[in-house]
Amino acid sequence: MADDAMRAAVMRDGRLVVDTVADPAPGPGQVLVRTLACGICGSDLHALKYAPKLAEAAQESGLPFTLDITRDVVMGHEFCAEVVDFGPETERRVPAGSRVVSMPLTMGPNGVDTVGYSNTYPGGYGELMVLSELMLLSVPNGLATGPAALTEPMAVGVHAVAKARLEPGDAALVVGCGPVGLAVVAALRLRGVEPIVAADFSPVRRAFASGLGAHVVVDPAAERPMDAWTAAAGARPAVIFECVGVQGILRDLMREAPRESRVVVAGVCMEDDRIRPIVGINKELSLQFVLGYSPLEFAETLDHIAEGRLAVEPLITGRVGVDGVPAAFEELARPDAQAKILVEPWR
Amino acid sequence: MADDAMRAAVMRDGRLVVDTVADPAPGPGQVLVRTLACGICGSDLHALKYAPKLAEAAQESGLPFTLDITRDVVMGHEFCAEVVDFGPETERRVPAGSRVVSMPLTMGPNGVDTVGYSNTYPGGYGELMVLSELMLLSVPNGLATGPAALTEPMAVGVHAVAKARLEPGDAALVVGCGPVGLAVVAALRLRGVEPIVAADFSPVRRAFASGLGAHVVVDPAAERPMDAWTAAAGARPAVIFECVGVQGILRDLMREAPRESRVVVAGVCMEDDRIRPIVGINKELSLQFVLGYSPLEFAETLDHIAEGRLAVEPLITGRVGVDGVPAAFEELARPDAQAKILVEPWR
Repeated sequence: MADDAMRAAVMRDGRLVVDTVADPAPGPGQVLVRTLACGICGSDLHALKYAPKLAEAAQESGLPFTLDITRDVVMGHEFCAEVVDFGPETERRVPAGSRVVSMPLTMGPNGVDTVGYSNTYPGGYGELMVLSELMLLSVPNGLATGPAALTEPMAVGVHAVAKARLEPGDAALVVGCGPVGLAVVAALRLRGVEPIVAADFSPVRRAFASGLGAHVVVDPAAERPMDAWTAAAGARPAVIFECVGVQGILRDLMREAPRESRVVVAGVCMEDDRIRPIVGINKELSLQFVLGYSPLEFAETLDHIAEGRLAVEPLITGRVGVDGVPAAFEELARPDAQAKILVEPWR
Repeated sequence: MADDAMRAAVMRDGRLVVDTVADPAPGPGQVLVRTLACGICGSDLHALKYAPKLAEAAQESGLPFTLDITRDVVMGHEFCAEVVDFGPETERRVPAGSRVVSMPLTMGPNGVDTVGYSNTYPGGYGELMVLSELMLLSVPNGLATGPAALTEPMAVGVHAVAKARLEPGDAALVVGCGPVGLAVVAALRLRGVEPIVAADFSPVRRAFASGLGAHVVVDPAAERPMDAWTAAAGARPAVIFECVGVQGILRDLMREAPRESRVVVAGVCMEDDRIRPIVGINKELSLQFVLGYSPLEFAETLDHIAEGRLAVEPLITGRVGVDGVPAAFEELARPDAQAKILVEPWR
């Protein structure tokens, strides 16, 4: 490897390849960091499959999405890293050698760009990244690197739960226990919601949901999740977290939900979907679509993990080097095998 | 006409016919009333067209909808009436001769049924109705019968606005200025929302919207409503009231809405509809479906009308007897002609 090049798993022509790419260089206000651990996110599997649709949907949503999928992209946006070097105009308030996490956004001369879905800023599936000094959060001593890297996906759950406008007496159904659903379960438990009913076809995922605080877990192949929820929660409106993101699930949930239920849509369905508005009207349902988290929610999530209020360590079921990323993607496409696989590019 | 029969506009075999039907008789806790005025509602035009779909959607929503469309139905649920006689087990707290309004629900031995979408309880397109004594609200002296009959449709607007969870600084876009849209405009004005931007293809309806308090009205043929809203409201999330109810409008509004906008779905689309969930996610939109009103909202609306805070008199653009109902339905299908036509069966 040349001195100015690094190893990375690269999205290239709709495939994932391991290659050597140029080291990123920190500009003004930016910091060079070494990736210690980076979680593989379901969104990255999605992105590999749906990259053109992602760009199209971002355009329809009016987002300034500048990703050019015909050029290399180093994905990875759930990371913990070590500060290596500083660009110009930095305050160096976090010293070299410190472990940090950051929201995957870097400010540059052309505005804000993502880290991990960008042609400019490689993500955590490579050895080095460039982050904005302003965005860095120090990882507290005593918090291991792996759990710290889970700040990002857990913040997604904290945010989804915040957008649900929970009230006393609310009872939750979490449909789908992939990483988003599990993060939602953990965040609901943190808020004291009871009961939390979680549904997934995979027994492994159901076991994770129980471990994170679901009071009842249900196999949709054996029982309708809404029925299990009703058995546990009784007659009241439901707060339903849709964490699957496939066509038809919104329509099904709208049909099954009790009157005045709220559906928080955290599952990312890239396709057009059909709903029955009259069913929503007859039951006065609401759909709240959610995405990401706020900077405050991100920082609070790190604190929850550091203080042991979000016990995420068991979710880490695998660790691979850069060479192992393509195989890990394939493994994650089978939901029974893994929860969170961390990429450790230094391996 | 026999002593025990009344004239009514009847929904029969998917058509509207004027005929003589049996007088309703008040049971325990019920009161016989004479219809003084009953507004023709867009839902009734819908019901005539979509009766089988209404029943199907109600079933999909789990509603106890027992309407048998193969039997006669006397529609009409926006009424002001005069107390004529009392059934057994009534308290007679509202004396005979009093003018009353009521939510269109009557309690009987088989539970609650609607008035106006029922095989048991004829609505206000007939000379007589049976109402629950418990539901009666006296019309204050000094409030004319016509505006009192508008309590029901205006309560729909009051409720839709209540479900929008308005906050200081919210700015509203009302898409569609039929009776529901106009009721929403009036309720928004009552709440002090500014600006209120209202869109309709009909210049007559736009004039009504202005009269009820819209600060800006827009013709969608000339300008995109969302653009007019942005010009008036600037860069902030929008509170959008969808009062049209046709396929595709939710998708369009989701595409055009600013980030974090809330869409209150008051328009009744009877068909399946397509949305793009990813657009909702990217912008963290919410959809709140709404229906009807609470008893408190209904009573408050009567009070708003009586006190002149909701000036609804100008909305009454026509009055017909029972014989005129079929022609009035046809006229209301053309949006430019009329706002609210009252049926006065005593004519």
